[in-house]
Amino acid sequence: MPLVRIELHPGRTAQQKTDCARAVVEAIVKHLGTTPAATQVIFVDVDKADWLTGDKIPPATPGG
Amino acid sequence: MPLVRIELHPGRTAQQKTDCARAVVEAIVKHLGTTPAATQVIFVDVDKADWLTGDKIPPATPGG
Amino acid sequence: MPLVRIELHPGRTAQQKTDCARAVVEAIVKHLGTTPAATQVIFVDVDKADWLTGDKIPPATPGG
Amino acid sequence: MPLVRIELHPGRTAQQKTDCARAVVEAIVKHLGTTPAATQVIFVDVDKADWLTGDKIPPATPGG
Amino acid sequence: MPLVRIELHPGRTAQQKTDCARAVVEAIVKHLGTTPAATQVIFVDVDKADWLTGDKIPPATPGG
Amino acid sequence: MPLVRIELHPGRTAQQKTDCARAVVEAIVKHLGTTPAATQVIFVDVDKADWLTGDKIPPATPGG
Repeated sequence: MPLVRIELHPGRTAQQKTDCARAVVEAIVKHLGTTPAATQVIFVDVDKADWLTGDKIPPATPGG
Repeated sequence: MPLVRIELHPGRTAQQKTDCARAVVEAIVKHLGTTPAATQVIFVDVDKADWLTGDKIPPATPGG
Repeated sequence: MPLVRIELHPGRTAQQKTDCARAVVEAIVKHLGTTPAATQVIFVDVDKADWLTGDKIPPATPGG
Repeated sequence: MPLVRIELHPGRTAQQKTDCARAVVEAIVKHLGTTPAATQVIFVDVDKADWLTGDKIPPATPGG
Repeated sequence: MPLVRIELHPGRTAQQKTDCARAVVEAIVKHLGTTPAATQVIFVDVDKADWLTGDKIPPATPGG
Repeated sequence: MPLVRIELHPGRTAQQKTDCARAVVEAIVKHLGTTPAATQVIFVDVDKADWLTGDKIPPATPGG
C-alpha cells in the first residue's frame, strides 16, 4: 500500500507515464508517510468513446 | 460524482454505448438527485475468456 | 455481465438506491441487449472528504 | 457475490486463466461459505509499462 | 502483481479472510507462475443493500 | 479525466489527504497535459486486515 490507479485517455507515451508515476509517488510518500517501495501506480487507458460525461452526451436521434 | 462504471462483454457499438449512457445518466439524475454534468459513465470491455462464473468453469483436464 | 458500479456521496436511502438500480438495469437491458438476471449493480459510498476535484482543492497553507 | 478481480501482466493463456479461476473459486467457496454459481472471476491484463512500483522507477533524466 | 480484489458481503471473520487469501494466493502462484511476495489480496465488504441483481429488484411501488 | 484512485490504510487525516491530492493533481497536470478541473482524486481506505500480501500471510493453523 498505497495503490494508485490512474485512468486516462490513451495517447501518453511510456515516458510521460513514467515521469508522472515518479512525481505521484513522491507526492504520496511526502504526504502519506509511506515508502516508494510500498507504492504502486497502475495506468488504465480508457478510450474517449468509452468515457462519457452526462451533459456532453448528444440527444437521442429520433427513432433511436 | 456520481461515477458509473459498466463492465460488459465487447461487441457493442459506440452508438449503443452512447444511448445506454444517456439512459443511465437520466436514471441516476432522477433517482439520486444530481445533475448530468456531475455524472460520468465509463465503459470497460471485458473479453468473455476473462470473465468466468464459478459453475460454468469446465472441470480440470486429467494431468492439467 | 454487465456489472455496474456506481460511486456516489453518502446520504441516499436504500429506497433511492433500489429505484436507481431498477432504472439503470432497465436502461442497460434496453440498450445493451442483455437480461436483468445478468445485470448487477453495486453502489459504493465515497465520503465527500475522500473525493477531490483538482480545481476545488484549497491552496496549501503556508508552512503546510 | 463474491466478485473476484485479478489484475496481472499479460501473457497467460486462456487455459492458465481458466485453471487459475477454478482454483480460486474452490478456495473462495471453501473459506467464505458461498457457491460456485455465485462466484465470478474477472481477469484484467495490465501491461508492464502501465504498472510501476515506486522504488523501481528510474530517476528523471536531466532536463526531463 | 498480481493484484486480487475480492468483493463480498460483510460478515466474514478476519480468520476466514486470512484463510481464503492464503488459498487464493496458492492458486495464483500455482497457475499463473508468480510468487507469494508479488501477490496481494484486498477484500472489500459490500453491504447487501448496495449490491443488487437485476431480476431480484422489487418492482417500483405505485407513485414511487 | 484523469481519474485517480488511491487505496491506502486508514489513519490519514483529511488534511493529509487534501495535501496529497493537491500534489498528485500537480504531478498529473504537469506530466499528462491536462487541467486541475479535469482531474479527480478518490481516496479509499482499506483496513490492514483486508489487505494481505502473499508472503506475509501466516501459515494455516493445524486443523484450520
